Amino acid sequence: MSMMQTDKTRPISLREIRSFHTSGRRVELADQPRQQVRVSPNAAPREVDLNGHYICGQLYAQHFQLAAPLMDLPVLFWHGGAMSGVTWETTPDGREGWANHFLRAGYDVVVSDAVERGRSSWAPFPQIYPDVPLFRTQEDAWSLFRMGPKGGFSADPTLRKAYVPQRFPLERFDQLCAQFVPRWTTNTEITEAAYRELIEGFDKAIIIAHSQGCWFAQRIAARYPDRVAAVVLVEPAGAPEVSAAEFAAAATVPHLFLWGDHCSGLPAWEAYRSDADARAAGLARAGGIADVVDLPARGIYGNSHMPMMDDNSAALADLVLDWLARVRPEGVGPEGGR
Amino acid sequence: MSMMQTDKTRPISLREIRSFHTSGRRVELADQPRQQVRVSPNAAPREVDLNGHYICGQLYAQHFQLAAPLMDLPVLFWHGGAMSGVTWETTPDGREGWANHFLRAGYDVVVSDAVERGRSSWAPFPQIYPDVPLFRTQEDAWSLFRMGPKGGFSADPTLRKAYVPQRFPLERFDQLCAQFVPRWTTNTEITEAAYRELIEGFDKAIIIAHSQGCWFAQRIAARYPDRVAAVVLVEPAGAPEVSAAEFAAAATVPHLFLWGDHCSGLPAWEAYRSDADARAAGLARAGGIADVVDLPARGIYGNSHMPMMDDNSAALADLVLDWLARVRPEGVGPEGGR
Repeated sequence: MSMMQTDKTRPISLREIRSFHTSGRRVELADQPRQQVRVSPNAAPREVDLNGHYICGQLYAQHFQLAAPLMDLPVLFWHGGAMSGVTWETTPDGREGWANHFLRAGYDVVVSDAVERGRSSWAPFPQIYPDVPLFRTQEDAWSLFRMGPKGGFSADPTLRKAYVPQRFPLERFDQLCAQFVPRWTTNTEITEAAYRELIEGFDKAIIIAHSQGCWFAQRIAARYPDRVAAVVLVEPAGAPEVSAAEFAAAATVPHLFLWGDHCSGLPAWEAYRSDADARAAGLARAGGIADVVDLPARGIYGNSHMPMMDDNSAALADLVLDWLARVRPEGVGPEGGR
Repeated sequence: MSMMQTDKTRPISLREIRSFHTSGRRVELADQPRQQVRVSPNAAPREVDLNGHYICGQLYAQHFQLAAPLMDLPVLFWHGGAMSGVTWETTPDGREGWANHFLRAGYDVVVSDAVERGRSSWAPFPQIYPDVPLFRTQEDAWSLFRMGPKGGFSADPTLRKAYVPQRFPLERFDQLCAQFVPRWTTNTEITEAAYRELIEGFDKAIIIAHSQGCWFAQRIAARYPDRVAAVVLVEPAGAPEVSAAEFAAAATVPHLFLWGDHCSGLPAWEAYRSDADARAAGLARAGGIADVVDLPARGIYGNSHMPMMDDNSAALADLVLDWLARVRPEGVGPEGGR
C-alpha cells in the first residue's frame, strides 16, 4: 500500500524528548470553605485552604525530536473528545501506534493532551469550569465509536454485539475505555487558544487530528494557514464555522479526510460526514487540495471510529504518509528541507 | 560528582516506546439524570445518558525501552501528590529531567501517572470517588514545596518572597503549577493495587519516587521485595505503616532517602523527616541498606521539595546513579545482567 517503508527493527534514535505546558492563565478563587483533610494515610488531618491562585487552561505536549529526521516538519497529533494523547500511542492490543509509526518514518512528532484532559490537568471548581463534565460510558462508546449497534454493549464480553466486519481489536475494548477521560463541552475557546499557542511554538507543522480534535485542526488551519503545512482529519466531528476570508485561507492548506465503515444509518455520523464532505467540496472549489478517503468505497471494510487502533492501523498510517509525500513533495526525502 | 558519565550529545536510541493502562475495574452507575448536552460547538444538543459502565482506577505508564540498555533493570518513576509523571520530564525551565538522564545513563525508564491523575483519568461521580478532590493553590505550593515561607507567594512574581539560597528556577514557578492536577485523598487502596499490578509487569525493577509517591514505593517494597531491587525516596511524605514481617522484607531492599534544604521549623516537613529517619534507622538495625542523604549536611544548600527540577538536578541524578551502582554492582555495566 505504501511507497514509504518503516523499519520496525531499526531503533527510534532521539536527540531529545521534551515536554512542556503551553498557554494557561492564572485564576483566583476567594470563596471556598476551608476544609480539614487527611492528605496522606498516616498523617493527621490538616487544614486545606482552597482559596488562592491556580494555573488553568494549559495544554501538555510531548515532543519527540529525532537525531536525524528525514522530514522537514513535525507532525502534531491532536486527539478527540473524551480522549488524551494516548490515542496515538500503543494500540489497546499492544501494537505500535501512529506516533511511533511516524517517528520511524522520519518525522519529529508532538503528542499533546487537550486542555482539561490528561496531563493538561483540569480545574475542579464550577467557578473555573462551568457545567459538569461528561464521562463516556462503555455503552455510549460502543455505538458512537462504531464497534457495534446501539445497545450492543454488555458488561459480559461474550454478549457484546459487534458490526461485521469489525477491525477494532474488540477483545481489548475495555483497554480503550481505560483511556477515556472526563471532558467539559464548554471550554472550546480556551482549548483553541492553547492549540494556537502550541502551533506558534513551531515555524510550521503538519496536524493529524481525530474526531473532536479535527474541529480544532480545521479552525487553526483556517486562521493560521502560514503555520500549517497540511491537515489530516481522521473521522472529523464535522466542520467548524469559519469566515469567508478564513475559508479562502484554509483552501491554501492541503486537507485529507479519512473515514471508516458503518457510518450509514447513524444520524450523528451522517451529519458529521455531510458537514465534512461539504467542507471538502468547498475547499476543492476554492482551488484547494481536499481529498476524501472513504475506506469502504476503496474496498477496505470494517474500520471503526478509531482507525489508528484498528487491525490495519499501520497500513492506514502508510496511506497518510503517502498522501503527505504527494501534497508536500518538497518536504520529503533524506534530511528534507532542513 | 559522578562515576557515571551521561553524554547529552549522544542520541537516546529506543527499541520501543510503549504505553499502556494497567489495573482498573468496571463500575456501573444507574441513577444519573439524563442530560441534553451540546458536545461540539456547531452540533445540535443531544441526550447524554451517563448511566452505564465505566473503567476506573487504572494507571497509565509510558515505557521507554533502549535499543542497547547498559543496565539490567528498568527504573520506575513515581510522582508525588497533586502531580503527574511530568515531574520526571523536562524541568519547568527547559532542562533535561531525570527520565531522560536515566535513559542516557543506560536504564530503561517507565514514567507513570498515579490513579486518578494525568493520563490515568479520573471519575467525576461521587458514587465512584467519595469526597471532593483537592487542587493545590500556588500559595500552598509556594510554602509546602519550600520555595519560600508561608505567605511568600504573590500573583506578582516580583513580590514573591523566597528562601535564600533557592535552587528551584523560581522564574518558572508558574510552569511548575501548570503541572498540578487535582487529587483525591481517599484512593490509597486502588492506587496501591495499581502500582502492584504495574510492578508485576516486570521481573524486577528499581523504583524512584517523590513525596507522596514514596509512601507507595515503601509499601510496595515491603510487600513485594522480590520485585524491587532498590528504592530511592526523594523527599518522602513520611513512612507507611507496615507489619513486622513486611518490615523485615523491606530491609532486604536497599533504600536511599534524599532530602533538600529549609525543612527545619516547618511542622509538616519535620514530621515527615522524623518518620522517614526512624524508618531508615530501623531498616539499618534490621541489617538493611538505608542511606540518608541530607544535602545541606553535605554542604549542598538551597534545594527545594523538587530536587529533580532544581538547578543541580543533573548532579543529584548522578548522585542517585552512583548510589545505585554501589548497592547493585551486579546490575551495572555494559549489558548488565541481560
